[in-house]
Amino acid sequence: MWKPDRNDNTPLYRQISEYIGQRIRYGEYPPGHKLPSERKLAAELQVNRSTVVQAYEELRAAGLIESAVGFGTRVAAGKWGIAPKPALNWHAYEKSGSFLPNVPLIRRIREQIRANPGLIDFASGELSPDLFPNESFQRLWRGNPYTGHLGYDDPQGYEPLRETLANFLREYHGIRATASSILITSGSQQSLFLITQCLLSPGDAVAIEDPSYCYSLPMFQSAGLRIFPLPVADEHGIDPGHLISLHRQHRIRMIFVNPNFQNPTGTVLSPPRRVKLLETAAELGIPVVEDDPFSLTAFNGHPPAPLKALDTAGNVIYIGSLSKIAASGFRIGWMAAPHSVVRRLADARQQMDFGLSAIPQWIAAKLLDSTADFEAHLASLRQALLHKRNLLVSALNEQFEGSVEFDIPQGGLTLWCKMTAPAGDEQLLEKAVRRGVVYMPGSVYGSGRGYVRLSFARPSSDKIADGVSRLADAVRSPH
Amino acid sequence: MWKPDRNDNTPLYRQISEYIGQRIRYGEYPPGHKLPSERKLAAELQVNRSTVVQAYEELRAAGLIESAVGFGTRVAAGKWGIAPKPALNWHAYEKSGSFLPNVPLIRRIREQIRANPGLIDFASGELSPDLFPNESFQRLWRGNPYTGHLGYDDPQGYEPLRETLANFLREYHGIRATASSILITSGSQQSLFLITQCLLSPGDAVAIEDPSYCYSLPMFQSAGLRIFPLPVADEHGIDPGHLISLHRQHRIRMIFVNPNFQNPTGTVLSPPRRVKLLETAAELGIPVVEDDPFSLTAFNGHPPAPLKALDTAGNVIYIGSLSKIAASGFRIGWMAAPHSVVRRLADARQQMDFGLSAIPQWIAAKLLDSTADFEAHLASLRQALLHKRNLLVSALNEQFEGSVEFDIPQGGLTLWCKMTAPAGDEQLLEKAVRRGVVYMPGSVYGSGRGYVRLSFARPSSDKIADGVSRLADAVRSPH
Repeated sequence: MWKPDRNDNTPLYRQISEYIGQRIRYGEYPPGHKLPSERKLAAELQVNRSTVVQAYEELRAAGLIESAVGFGTRVAAGKWGIAPKPALNWHAYEKSGSFLPNVPLIRRIREQIRANPGLIDFASGELSPDLFPNESFQRLWRGNPYTGHLGYDDPQGYEPLRETLANFLREYHGIRATASSILITSGSQQSLFLITQCLLSPGDAVAIEDPSYCYSLPMFQSAGLRIFPLPVADEHGIDPGHLISLHRQHRIRMIFVNPNFQNPTGTVLSPPRRVKLLETAAELGIPVVEDDPFSLTAFNGHPPAPLKALDTAGNVIYIGSLSKIAASGFRIGWMAAPHSVVRRLADARQQMDFGLSAIPQWIAAKLLDSTADFEAHLASLRQALLHKRNLLVSALNEQFEGSVEFDIPQGGLTLWCKMTAPAGDEQLLEKAVRRGVVYMPGSVYGSGRGYVRLSFARPSSDKIADGVSRLADAVRSPH
Repeated sequence: MWKPDRNDNTPLYRQISEYIGQRIRYGEYPPGHKLPSERKLAAELQVNRSTVVQAYEELRAAGLIESAVGFGTRVAAGKWGIAPKPALNWHAYEKSGSFLPNVPLIRRIREQIRANPGLIDFASGELSPDLFPNESFQRLWRGNPYTGHLGYDDPQGYEPLRETLANFLREYHGIRATASSILITSGSQQSLFLITQCLLSPGDAVAIEDPSYCYSLPMFQSAGLRIFPLPVADEHGIDPGHLISLHRQHRIRMIFVNPNFQNPTGTVLSPPRRVKLLETAAELGIPVVEDDPFSLTAFNGHPPAPLKALDTAGNVIYIGSLSKIAASGFRIGWMAAPHSVVRRLADARQQMDFGLSAIPQWIAAKLLDSTADFEAHLASLRQALLHKRNLLVSALNEQFEGSVEFDIPQGGLTLWCKMTAPAGDEQLLEKAVRRGVVYMPGSVYGSGRGYVRLSFARPSSDKIADGVSRLADAVRSPH
């Protein structure tokens, strides 16, 4: 993001007015474009408000922008001459489209994180950079000449990576799959996007866990789906019996679950319920989409095998990724599903983006193939996550003195907790932001107020206690 | 793609039956799944038909598959026991979804190319691997430690690449843009996908060139758009005057054009028509999407500046990519557009796939930053393309003896030609495939029969004359 240069001799206000003037002349801020308020821009650029006031003053004097009460500051329509053409109404286009914008609360949190790198980030369900397999990656980069190709890739993804994943799925998860029925995607996110866009029609009813990560994804609404909740009943996850009544009422077309370390509750679906869920879904003829990003983070021993390992009838679409166990920036996810489903989705994906670059796929294959290295990475990742989880749990116990309730997660990147005296979601978030800390409000996942999801993976270890103390202060204070 | 191993001691038919049996047991071919015909599978696996007959025989004997006239060969429903459950109807799901499958003719051509690497490929609008900047790439890989990050990327794309592209756009195209209004996408394809999904609503009317690459993209129909043609009037491209009547009748919401070396006709929109098009669109308040993949392939000197270089009002969304000038496998494309448009599309893209890996973006930035290297690459690319174009033109003149008509393209990767005695599109394609050559039939781009698009970039130089001779034979022969 552009910022004025404090070492430059040009005054800050002048740098700002020149930058904005340039963007207006380039057509990036077309006539009628609304500029941020002076206060907001000052915060973004980390300058005094008076500096922005002066910059806007200059632009107004040059006839490039105009301000009015209730109208804000906008690019002047008349900037092109005496008789300006009516400006093109981009705003109408931005509001069009069947694909909906992100949830405003999530956009607000992400913007805060980008604008202010000093923020203590309990919001992002992501590893901190020190937990990435940085050394393996650098060694791999230096030691290997790239032998992948530079042309368009196979529509299902780089074949050597699919071969590697077939082994990986068998060894780590007990899932039997051939490379021919694996699709490489840009993280789990693209798998879910392809499923909602290509296998379901507008008006279709789907069941998702409640609360669920899926609620944070406008893609379900963008695809016109009707969403019905399967409550996370207790620490053993959803009750598969609920599916029957839900199906009777709404004719459920697909079920989305995250059985291991469910996002956001952290629950693990118990083995008897797994069997029951698969049986029930098979009897009702409903396919199950199993999102499994966290299995390999299990802190102690092994979590139950994924549903897909029990599925010999091909009723389950299994989704995994490297994002939560190696690095999100590889953008490597995968899907194991019936062959014809994989073919349909690969065809659609090709139309959307012509597939992934082979380069990160080649890297991912090399990482997973260097088994000892990858094992060592996983072991140290689990240890580090466990340590960070413990820091978070201690800090919560100390700072909140019983005014929060939570189960201690045995894997995953986040902790789900309930405030016993909850404030409004948005007010609490604003109070937290003012104190330099962010988290994910439960409402993002469809929960009632008072719930928060805290990522212990993202903040660095030495910031966790400080972050919790700021959060506790936000909860206690009226402002 | 899996193939039986001819060096293995296990007989071929047994390898095939074991592989299929495995996929049935894994649920990849669920009950009811239709297997390919014996003839088709034999062609795919490059074995005798009798080998497949024997493999299917074994699977039938094991109760895993069943065949019947008019029903084909399918995975047996009863494979799970005495009282099988009704199988899940995946087929119904594969036919659902608002996102449509690829054009069947295109799928057929791509399948042929994948199944038969010996085919002479005039179909793919892609560089042959020897034209990629292979040496620069390998030098870059070996010489530089990767200094990008491994976490989620900025929603608009890797910032150093956007900075590089702002310079690149100015120097090569005279386009003025700041890094803040550039969006990195997975090739041009994803730019078009985002625009059609997020800026237009179902029922909206859009104007595209006729013939056009856009006709080959089901994404327009998937988004529910109504498409209206602007005929490529002559060698100078579309007549902007047509836009007025089209808009009067249909209220056009957006215009998609490819002014330099239009795909598929190869025409270059004349400079006066560029000015006229921009003026007309501005008067009517219609935004223009300019797809510009080929400008830098111009064989002699420079093509006219893109529309975007003339657009100071921010009415043009400009799309470019590395696919046709460096390598398609980087999957690096870009868009320069008004700031708020870029923000809207970046937000949507994040929901679809959480953005691109920073790794290929970092590589792309390094490639473009090593200016002398990149210049040298472009110069040798142009020379090689010109040479291959000349080979194609000579071969067409020799082999077809006046029974084809074409303009000689001055840039781009393909040549558009018209058969003076046209056969049906599908029959000619089948005849060509039998002779080991493929091309793109004009109907894919919305043309009447008799037109073909021939890529001179994709086949290796020594195959071009042979390919044209096979094609001429296909045209002349009745079968």
